[in-house]
Amino acid sequence: MANSKFEYVRHFEQNDTLLPNTYIVIRIDGRGFHRFSQTHNFAKPNDRRAIDLMNHCAIQVMKDLHDIILAYGQSDEYSFVLPKKSNLYSRRASKLSSTVVSLFASNYVMAWPTFFGSQAIEYPPCFDSRTVCYPSDQNLKDYLNWRQADCHINNLYNTTFWALVHDGLTETEAEDKLKGTFSKDKNELLFSKYNVNYNNIEPIYRKGSTIIRLRQEVTSISPRNGEPVTRTKLVPAAVHDDIIGQDFWDKHQNLLQ
Amino acid sequence: MANSKFEYVRHFEQNDTLLPNTYIVIRIDGRGFHRFSQTHNFAKPNDRRAIDLMNHCAIQVMKDLHDIILAYGQSDEYSFVLPKKSNLYSRRASKLSSTVVSLFASNYVMAWPTFFGSQAIEYPPCFDSRTVCYPSDQNLKDYLNWRQADCHINNLYNTTFWALVHDGLTETEAEDKLKGTFSKDKNELLFSKYNVNYNNIEPIYRKGSTIIRLRQEVTSISPRNGEPVTRTKLVPAAVHDDIIGQDFWDKHQNLLQ
Amino acid sequence: MANSKFEYVRHFEQNDTLLPNTYIVIRIDGRGFHRFSQTHNFAKPNDRRAIDLMNHCAIQVMKDLHDIILAYGQSDEYSFVLPKKSNLYSRRASKLSSTVVSLFASNYVMAWPTFFGSQAIEYPPCFDSRTVCYPSDQNLKDYLNWRQADCHINNLYNTTFWALVHDGLTETEAEDKLKGTFSKDKNELLFSKYNVNYNNIEPIYRKGSTIIRLRQEVTSISPRNGEPVTRTKLVPAAVHDDIIGQDFWDKHQNLLQ
Amino acid sequence: MANSKFEYVRHFEQNDTLLPNTYIVIRIDGRGFHRFSQTHNFAKPNDRRAIDLMNHCAIQVMKDLHDIILAYGQSDEYSFVLPKKSNLYSRRASKLSSTVVSLFASNYVMAWPTFFGSQAIEYPPCFDSRTVCYPSDQNLKDYLNWRQADCHINNLYNTTFWALVHDGLTETEAEDKLKGTFSKDKNELLFSKYNVNYNNIEPIYRKGSTIIRLRQEVTSISPRNGEPVTRTKLVPAAVHDDIIGQDFWDKHQNLLQ
Repeated sequence: MANSKFEYVRHFEQNDTLLPNTYIVIRIDGRGFHRFSQTHNFAKPNDRRAIDLMNHCAIQVMKDLHDIILAYGQSDEYSFVLPKKSNLYSRRASKLSSTVVSLFASNYVMAWPTFFGSQAIEYPPCFDSRTVCYPSDQNLKDYLNWRQADCHINNLYNTTFWALVHDGLTETEAEDKLKGTFSKDKNELLFSKYNVNYNNIEPIYRKGSTIIRLRQEVTSISPRNGEPVTRTKLVPAAVHDDIIGQDFWDKHQNLLQ
Repeated sequence: MANSKFEYVRHFEQNDTLLPNTYIVIRIDGRGFHRFSQTHNFAKPNDRRAIDLMNHCAIQVMKDLHDIILAYGQSDEYSFVLPKKSNLYSRRASKLSSTVVSLFASNYVMAWPTFFGSQAIEYPPCFDSRTVCYPSDQNLKDYLNWRQADCHINNLYNTTFWALVHDGLTETEAEDKLKGTFSKDKNELLFSKYNVNYNNIEPIYRKGSTIIRLRQEVTSISPRNGEPVTRTKLVPAAVHDDIIGQDFWDKHQNLLQ
Repeated sequence: MANSKFEYVRHFEQNDTLLPNTYIVIRIDGRGFHRFSQTHNFAKPNDRRAIDLMNHCAIQVMKDLHDIILAYGQSDEYSFVLPKKSNLYSRRASKLSSTVVSLFASNYVMAWPTFFGSQAIEYPPCFDSRTVCYPSDQNLKDYLNWRQADCHINNLYNTTFWALVHDGLTETEAEDKLKGTFSKDKNELLFSKYNVNYNNIEPIYRKGSTIIRLRQEVTSISPRNGEPVTRTKLVPAAVHDDIIGQDFWDKHQNLLQ
Repeated sequence: MANSKFEYVRHFEQNDTLLPNTYIVIRIDGRGFHRFSQTHNFAKPNDRRAIDLMNHCAIQVMKDLHDIILAYGQSDEYSFVLPKKSNLYSRRASKLSSTVVSLFASNYVMAWPTFFGSQAIEYPPCFDSRTVCYPSDQNLKDYLNWRQADCHINNLYNTTFWALVHDGLTETEAEDKLKGTFSKDKNELLFSKYNVNYNNIEPIYRKGSTIIRLRQEVTSISPRNGEPVTRTKLVPAAVHDDIIGQDFWDKHQNLLQ
């Protein structure tokens, strides 16, 4: 049975190579995570186990795909950054996008028990993903700024919203109360009514998580003489810094070369 | 902190809407499954547990995404077919591709214990995926024919190869012995030396798996009067038919309208 | 001076191959033809010289590019149709689009004196162009129907509008008078006030122009014996038929195979 | 006759917006210009009239499309550069590509008599065009370097080739003689045999033509008082400089901002 007479169908595949010399961002987003978080009783406004699990998955993705220089995550989304010079999978959009998202999803289920203990995962999670090219350092930073600003806006809202709900308001009443308010109004309400200084809330909630490769000392036993050997290695790890300001980039100058 | 000054970065996302009125095939492929199958001691040439797990995942994807009319799988790959008229996710390539592949991957890990029992999954699997458009019925059939012919060619080869290896040859010796042989040579070798009639091998191995929505009787208890109610429902299920010939398409005329 | 160190820039060209087995339509549109028609005192509502020149250019394009099976033109636009099987320029969108539009533009200037006599062309015309794929016969017909329906709507409006203006109304008054009117109102107005039966207006204005390859007898002098030889040949020529109904397609069954 | 039931065909048009914040190069190339140059007896190796006409057309394109910052031409090709920030035609590839190429082609025919006098143009010229994005200044410069290096290589070859042919060799003999030679061999041959110092050949042939907007004094008559008024204006004009070295870019620092 010759396969050749059917092979013409390969020519229907469209080339989706991304423009060279641009940063590639691969962003994944939870599909239907509102329902997923309710089914699994995620704490509100933030469930630390869920965030730690997301960060774990992102770290696993970075351990597998060495080209990724940075990842930024908040809520049910994560963005992975490839440097301008990367030629991973010949820069094919669908290959990059699908490899990252499927690795993330399978890691999510694999590591669930580590973060949720005996609470079972009820059904498999789903994420979508896409690739976007950014030509300049400033465009890439503004992309990340956009996501971190989004984190801030949502987290301030959610923190206030759930403070009101935990205080006895219905969700609709809390929504109505916050309609049209500005950041300073929410900060004021949190402080005056609940004695919460928003700026003292843990950075992981206010700033999201940035995974970068940090130099760590790794000790292993030498196979030669059985003695411990210490060397430094780049290991992906989460920080919860402000990345909108210049400080972060000054501190990690190697990130953008 | 205004988000608006960063939002311009959204305009860097490229539109990837697929041409209307064409079949969309979403094909996923295992990444590094040679190593994955070795790590998990998959039986050779075929591991029934692994195939059943793949089919289970495909069925779950079809239960979630109702637009999919058919899926065809073999080895570590699966192809999902959307009809010409589908407007799922506005036909955006990356959204379709990533949703299917992440659902497949998370289901794979979730359902692993059902098929592999106490044997643990050692590390999370990874799949890539892509979308391809086919304008005509014949193009779509030829795509599926291509994959089923590929299944046949590989399975005949693998069956013969592993018969030789199980018989005592090294993998290199078996490879050398099969170099340059035709289908009929392999059939002959299997029959004369191992008394195996290739055509009697189970269809699931020779033909792969085709998931279609079959009409099944479903019985449930009426919430009104507590009595059992039987109705028919379309349920995705695997068949292992020849899909290259016309018979399959005559039997399931509704598939292509 | 080696050229090779700069050649990497070629990899920035993106592949723009169009999906196989679909009709390709290349549509060109005059840029700023309102001003162009005023500068050159085109007769209103229709200038026969301008239309004949457009048709001439389309015919020249079809004489050059043999793959084109049909062209449809009206006002300052023309659409060229390539069959599903065409592999012209490997189906590269920019190559197809630019070749057609530049040929059209250069023919327009070349042939201007033939149609406008001693009236000089004041400045070079400009056209844009684009390619669109249509997977089915019905999609292609509906595209052409869309253009011919557009021709009808515009021509009925323009015929009535200019009748009013030639009758003494200002352009603004004519516009106001036609605001909100339906086809039958315009037909009625033309008939009752100007004794014009719209359906008797020449088809070239009401239906636009369709260029197809018609079989014609061509007589040439034999180089062997100097005697006249007559043979039939397919020659692109304009007809002004209704192409929305089925009759046209029944009459020219070979067009869509 | 409602147009609306056909309008769905518009959704088959694919979005071809080019990535923001990148240089856009629109390159046009003569189609079949070998034959065109023979038909019109272009002088060999270079026909000054033909080059001047190409440059004239490029200047006209730049007078029409103000976003273009630079154009580079040699032989039968021209490249037009849009700055990173340009939003001309919303950065739609087909619109940009077709507008430039059709303007160029119609200008070519219009201005032919100005450069070729009484020698008639025998048939309409044809050009193709494409767009390419370049993210960085260096990528853009390397693109232009690539084209100017190509100009140099071809012109040195052609100059030597035609010297040999004008000297009595057949074209095949000249070709054979130059096979495998390096630049210095051709320079040497030109000098020793024909007393031609290649570096003294006019820059327009060796370097091609770069059109940039130069500040010029323009004098016009004031409509107020009938007196002459002189002001400066940016006018596109051709220079024939080396653009591979840094000097050109230092001299025109505003080009890349």
